Amino acid sequence: MAVSSTLPDSLPGDRRFFHRVGPFSLADLAAVSGADIREAADGRHGQVFTGVAPLHVASPDEVSFLDNRRYLPLLEETKAGAVILGPAFSEKLPAHTAGLISKAPYLAWARVASHFHPVPSSRSVRHPSAIVGDNVQIGENVEIGPLAVIGDGARIGAGSVISAHAVIGENVQIGENCRIGAHVAVSHSLIGNRVTLYPGVRIGQDGFGFAVGPAGFETVPQLGLVIIEDDVEVGANSTIDRGSMKDTLIGAGTRIDNLVQIGHNARLGRCCIVVSQAGISGSTELGDFVTIAAQAGLIGHIKIGDKARVGAQCGVMSDVDAGADVIGSPAMPFREFFRNVATLRKMSKKDAS
Amino acid sequence: MAVSSTLPDSLPGDRRFFHRVGPFSLADLAAVSGADIREAADGRHGQVFTGVAPLHVASPDEVSFLDNRRYLPLLEETKAGAVILGPAFSEKLPAHTAGLISKAPYLAWARVASHFHPVPSSRSVRHPSAIVGDNVQIGENVEIGPLAVIGDGARIGAGSVISAHAVIGENVQIGENCRIGAHVAVSHSLIGNRVTLYPGVRIGQDGFGFAVGPAGFETVPQLGLVIIEDDVEVGANSTIDRGSMKDTLIGAGTRIDNLVQIGHNARLGRCCIVVSQAGISGSTELGDFVTIAAQAGLIGHIKIGDKARVGAQCGVMSDVDAGADVIGSPAMPFREFFRNVATLRKMSKKDAS
Amino acid sequence: MAVSSTLPDSLPGDRRFFHRVGPFSLADLAAVSGADIREAADGRHGQVFTGVAPLHVASPDEVSFLDNRRYLPLLEETKAGAVILGPAFSEKLPAHTAGLISKAPYLAWARVASHFHPVPSSRSVRHPSAIVGDNVQIGENVEIGPLAVIGDGARIGAGSVISAHAVIGENVQIGENCRIGAHVAVSHSLIGNRVTLYPGVRIGQDGFGFAVGPAGFETVPQLGLVIIEDDVEVGANSTIDRGSMKDTLIGAGTRIDNLVQIGHNARLGRCCIVVSQAGISGSTELGDFVTIAAQAGLIGHIKIGDKARVGAQCGVMSDVDAGADVIGSPAMPFREFFRNVATLRKMSKKDAS
Repeated sequence: MAVSSTLPDSLPGDRRFFHRVGPFSLADLAAVSGADIREAADGRHGQVFTGVAPLHVASPDEVSFLDNRRYLPLLEETKAGAVILGPAFSEKLPAHTAGLISKAPYLAWARVASHFHPVPSSRSVRHPSAIVGDNVQIGENVEIGPLAVIGDGARIGAGSVISAHAVIGENVQIGENCRIGAHVAVSHSLIGNRVTLYPGVRIGQDGFGFAVGPAGFETVPQLGLVIIEDDVEVGANSTIDRGSMKDTLIGAGTRIDNLVQIGHNARLGRCCIVVSQAGISGSTELGDFVTIAAQAGLIGHIKIGDKARVGAQCGVMSDVDAGADVIGSPAMPFREFFRNVATLRKMSKKDAS
Repeated sequence: MAVSSTLPDSLPGDRRFFHRVGPFSLADLAAVSGADIREAADGRHGQVFTGVAPLHVASPDEVSFLDNRRYLPLLEETKAGAVILGPAFSEKLPAHTAGLISKAPYLAWARVASHFHPVPSSRSVRHPSAIVGDNVQIGENVEIGPLAVIGDGARIGAGSVISAHAVIGENVQIGENCRIGAHVAVSHSLIGNRVTLYPGVRIGQDGFGFAVGPAGFETVPQLGLVIIEDDVEVGANSTIDRGSMKDTLIGAGTRIDNLVQIGHNARLGRCCIVVSQAGISGSTELGDFVTIAAQAGLIGHIKIGDKARVGAQCGVMSDVDAGADVIGSPAMPFREFFRNVATLRKMSKKDAS
Repeated sequence: MAVSSTLPDSLPGDRRFFHRVGPFSLADLAAVSGADIREAADGRHGQVFTGVAPLHVASPDEVSFLDNRRYLPLLEETKAGAVILGPAFSEKLPAHTAGLISKAPYLAWARVASHFHPVPSSRSVRHPSAIVGDNVQIGENVEIGPLAVIGDGARIGAGSVISAHAVIGENVQIGENCRIGAHVAVSHSLIGNRVTLYPGVRIGQDGFGFAVGPAGFETVPQLGLVIIEDDVEVGANSTIDRGSMKDTLIGAGTRIDNLVQIGHNARLGRCCIVVSQAGISGSTELGDFVTIAAQAGLIGHIKIGDKARVGAQCGVMSDVDAGADVIGSPAMPFREFFRNVATLRKMSKKDAS
């Protein structure tokens, strides 16, 4: 049972841990991914596929993927029965390998891999150890895991999964087909459909608000909620505080990584990306399709325009225009930041010589 | 049940989620907040108030708040029955709106809002699913939530609330009127009165200490405790390690935000503020009233003087004087940091031209 | 029961919280630590020792420690019966104090302190409230705490401790003599022997992977595992995502502090140190004996050579050579970083004058 440092990697989709469906024909996979089929040059046909794997380990009944010129040597040697790739690489396919040709190969890959490995659906069982309060409305096919606690008056939509040890507060609403991870705590929140909260997420606790009184800090009641729209994901151990007088809002389709902090009254638009360990302070607003890279920090009460991109470790102290790329602390345009780096290096060398 | 992106904000203090008391007269609110009453110019009188709300949504039976010249246009149009504000703005009150005039309007607001929305008191019940060890001393009116685990020999003071799924280690002491959030784990700790630990806080685990041995790292036993004095708050998913040979100490009245790391043997003074994702390394000492802004990091074994302010993302590598304002990585005085930013921009432009 | 700010520090190894064994003779302690004995100058002999303590509080039956010239004044005044120290300081021992002389005094200290305070062994009991699935293999002397949940098919090696409220996913393997803390969640993982996971650690959840589709982000299935080799420690509330197509790997002996993020497919070598709040992005690889200091961030798909040291808050955007010391954001050699700081200060002063 020992795990030694020479243990080989697991194979992707290890059957001990991952549910798998199929097999599927090339036509099935082309349909699901929107890719065009290029039959194998050796004329084989009618093959079925049982899963996905990287180029160097895929077998003839597996589908693989190429997105980067760097891996062309692996393509030449692959045993994969089919490979998803862009039109530019299709001529490089080995004779025994069919192509699934897509202008968006990574998206095609996401869909093919998801076709073999769909998100496990709810088991539709309530574990007898779960503690469910009064006047809780639970939709059809909801799974409630061991020792989950659902507070009075909560509503859980059809098809949702509440994992082991999750704690759902009183009157919290969770939509349909959500996945609430182990040890999640949610209070004071309204949550849409198809929302995924990974293990250890904390949503709805008090924002960080207090006034200075004569004998120390005095807490300002935090009287808003957290609203999470449809199709949001929140990574493990991230924290989203509820609003003070209005709501903290996470827009539809937004993806938040692990260990991210979202302060009270913050408002994120649709389809934003917030990478791990980034922090968004209170009352700051993001437009749609904003990207906040890892460990970036935004002060409070600023606005970030649509499609702006904030670089890793960036410290943002003022508004950012729509479409802008900023980095550095304090934040500045990418180009300016790297010019500064070069200038300082030059000055410093001159200074030392 | 769907939550659409056009859902209006909840109203502050949504009755599904927030306990509310009242109504209160203007005189009551003046008394609780220390504000002076300025009657409405239209002569109405004897009104009672049922809650608080921001200027643009408040109704005649609600109290609102103005702290910033920027929001004067909202004041002119508010329907609020009363507004808390500073003396400078009192002439701007609409005729139908009474004033609660305070030189510390935010503090007055905190008190008025807390008067309507006091922290819910303990329900004084022990959920039958909680697991309470031997020789545990539990004070009067303690609430113990579902599936909480209290180790042997622990002491929980009167009026405290131990939330669902909290784990209190053996012999841990928790004072009176504390609020221990869901999924909190505390071990090796002595905790004062009126302390709030938000969900997912970890207190008392081993500090990060090891020696380099011939075959790898060898753990140094961490033999100190964590001492948390009265009136401290610790935000969601923050971590405070216990000391190695002395105790890690969090001084009375200190407020710690979410996802903060406090290393072993660190000692924070009274009424410090540590904002989210900041980190304080082992054996570093903070005086009283120190502010550490978001994502700042302090190396170990340094001293930060009383009332010093460490800016966001600051990297502090040496002692900071009492009252100093520092920012940057490495830390420097605010003024120097922003002068450096300006100089580098200038040099860089010149260099590029 | 109140904890006042004037409460004295606890004594190290407070018997309410720490298990202690002994007493031991000086010969025992010399044997366990590899130190040489220097008898006390006053000729006392045959003494036994009951514990460890810092120089200023140690009593004649306790062992203390000196590693730094700065504390020589404390050595002169200590009442300790024995002190572990380097050969250079041995002449400074008081007459009543024996020496345990070691060229690696901190390691000797770790071993002596661990000799008095060994890691508590498993209690070998399964709490009746724990929920253990089907086909679970549990080795001898395993302790399973209150309300722990062990999924179907999981394997827990002999001597391991699964603490209260931990959730071990289906088919997860945990080796021998592991310590899995309170509220830990592990899924999709194979874990070696003598691994410690502190409270709130999340291991094996989906990596942050999605493709851009026409209607928003589409999840890319994360089909790899997390492999944690022997003797690894992971600090409180840290997160390690499972791989997308290969495994995320944590090499033997590596120590990870609190609130650290490890992205999917990352591969850490043996005996690395990753300090609190650092983040390692997806597919980045660390050699052996790499140190990543607090709050540093590494972008994805880079390689860090053996024994490289990455400074606090460093932002690493490209490969780092073996043995290199880098700091700054973007990362650069230590020397260059501090030269830049000095140059900019000089330019800025000149610019201001």
